[in-house]
Amino acid sequence: MATAADIDAMRRAIALAARGLGTTSPNPVVGCVLVDATGRIVGEGHHQRAGGPHAEIHALRAAGDRARGATAYVTLEPCNHTGRTGPCAQALIEAGVRRVVYAVGDPNPQATGGAETLRAAGTEVLGGLLADEAEAGNIAWLTSVRLGRPFVRWKYAATLDGRIAAADGTSRWISSPESRADVHRLRAEADAVIVGSGTARADDPHLAVRGIEGAVQPLRVVVDTDATAVKPGARVLDDAARTVIAVADDIPVEDTAHFPETWRLTRAPGGGLDIPELLAALHQQGVRSVLLEGGPTLAGAFVRAGAVDQIVGYLAPALLGAGPTALADAGITTISDALRLEVTEAVRIGPDLRITATPKGA
Amino acid sequence: MATAADIDAMRRAIALAARGLGTTSPNPVVGCVLVDATGRIVGEGHHQRAGGPHAEIHALRAAGDRARGATAYVTLEPCNHTGRTGPCAQALIEAGVRRVVYAVGDPNPQATGGAETLRAAGTEVLGGLLADEAEAGNIAWLTSVRLGRPFVRWKYAATLDGRIAAADGTSRWISSPESRADVHRLRAEADAVIVGSGTARADDPHLAVRGIEGAVQPLRVVVDTDATAVKPGARVLDDAARTVIAVADDIPVEDTAHFPETWRLTRAPGGGLDIPELLAALHQQGVRSVLLEGGPTLAGAFVRAGAVDQIVGYLAPALLGAGPTALADAGITTISDALRLEVTEAVRIGPDLRITATPKGA
Repeated sequence: MATAADIDAMRRAIALAARGLGTTSPNPVVGCVLVDATGRIVGEGHHQRAGGPHAEIHALRAAGDRARGATAYVTLEPCNHTGRTGPCAQALIEAGVRRVVYAVGDPNPQATGGAETLRAAGTEVLGGLLADEAEAGNIAWLTSVRLGRPFVRWKYAATLDGRIAAADGTSRWISSPESRADVHRLRAEADAVIVGSGTARADDPHLAVRGIEGAVQPLRVVVDTDATAVKPGARVLDDAARTVIAVADDIPVEDTAHFPETWRLTRAPGGGLDIPELLAALHQQGVRSVLLEGGPTLAGAFVRAGAVDQIVGYLAPALLGAGPTALADAGITTISDALRLEVTEAVRIGPDLRITATPKGA
Repeated sequence: MATAADIDAMRRAIALAARGLGTTSPNPVVGCVLVDATGRIVGEGHHQRAGGPHAEIHALRAAGDRARGATAYVTLEPCNHTGRTGPCAQALIEAGVRRVVYAVGDPNPQATGGAETLRAAGTEVLGGLLADEAEAGNIAWLTSVRLGRPFVRWKYAATLDGRIAAADGTSRWISSPESRADVHRLRAEADAVIVGSGTARADDPHLAVRGIEGAVQPLRVVVDTDATAVKPGARVLDDAARTVIAVADDIPVEDTAHFPETWRLTRAPGGGLDIPELLAALHQQGVRSVLLEGGPTLAGAFVRAGAVDQIVGYLAPALLGAGPTALADAGITTISDALRLEVTEAVRIGPDLRITATPKGA
């Protein structure tokens, strides 16, 4: 049975886990809190980066001898395998932890079995506490493990009437400085940022993270099917972060000579590149989460491919009445085929509204 | 000086005033609370319908002798004129009310002066308490007095990507049953409901209020410039409410024979009818508030005419990627000309979001 104290400690562990967002890939974010018999926190930790110690190890080190007889609260089932760091289940046993409470079971077939190992050693184990909250905090990694491709978060900024630019193409600025700063946070959380050729041509975006201390720069990806949008000197080609230009596999080598790294992918029948192939290539490179920054055509291709896992819309309090809309060519022609979503959050960001939603049944 | 008790009582008066929304036109909504020297509420009232007693009179009747020495909280400055009912300032004086606290000064030149009359009779008077809240509750009437035309609330329902229908024109249903019920409340609050020919043609809407007990049916108005959209047998032509079809002044009489009431108005240079002329005609008929229910072209004409005072958008958690958008042809071509708004409320209505906003500087 979980007590109120259990819930408090797990919530703290979930908050700790979130500190790792953007730096742990291809690993999950994990937080751990150690509480002694008197209810005092004796150790805390979170997984900071792949190759570094797991959350449990950080917490055990902080607790030292006080770990003996303590309860460990972990957002993810302690691992059972010896990867770049030792198995955490064994470390918890050796430290004399009496009870382990975890939120989400480990879906990774290589790592699972931690709970069993702990129980076999006589440790009391409780799984599933605040599983929904912990899962939401780890959604990118969990999705990538379950689907075998990166988690895709589609971000757009539009007016209340759904326009991402005015009729003449101007779009600076639709959303507020607060929203634009928030987007840098989303970039910092992602392993890769993707735009299409339309956005590359219209905005010459830089796509790197600015203004967030300690951020790991995401891989920058431009889907430039015909290799016509990213010109020499484009801002995305600087050395602020690794950059990949994805082009069709029939594009001659001389057309891509100015790209630092080119991926050649199959063309999709309806135009553009094959999205599942792009995502598979990213997954192979260790990319577990992607921030799709549009524009409408590329977003439509991702929706058509069933490859949007979360939508983050910044709605600016403005009306335009003309200009391109946030989403186009999604393959939906009638109302019964609409992609139905569930809104998971709606908050004010400066003067704007930020709406977070997930496809129903996803 | 206003006390916490003053604020509580005024807030109660504002809540009472709201009960009159939709039934008091062409009068404002007004609420009144009488509180005796011990802090007890001894009388309450709100204005219910034009020609009926004002809020103060309802409250005085409820209080009887207990009004002597009491404080009256009124959302609008007590009137000073003898209209269909006597002047409220005089009635408060005669009842022996010791102190009058009101929220918003009366902008109506025929009715103003109540505060002065009260002071001259030795009554203590405090104006401006919770003026913003009371003004928001009476915004339709106040706007109509200030601008000499009805208050216009534009309502739309769209997907997150701004579509009001799918590519094939289907739109049943984009928004939820909860949102659609909420729209009936907006209709009940309005003196008139307006749609354009596109909506009349596509949806054959009925436009009457359903499901709200005691609702006064608003005037139904269809802007059918060329008299081609509203066919004999159209649902809006039934006897559920008065219906006006507004057509261009060059439309022959035989084309409008099947309309119960036809208004002939000047054509606007860009197409459609002259919006200020339509609003002037409505104002002349006692219409103080209008619910504009679209579609995009008519909404665009209202935006172009600077005649949208409030926007209520129901955003459904769905994506379409194609189909008509909520607003079109608003005369805005570049981002610096965007109609900038201030969001005054964002709430969940069932699965949808309802966003209320007002044009900046309005």
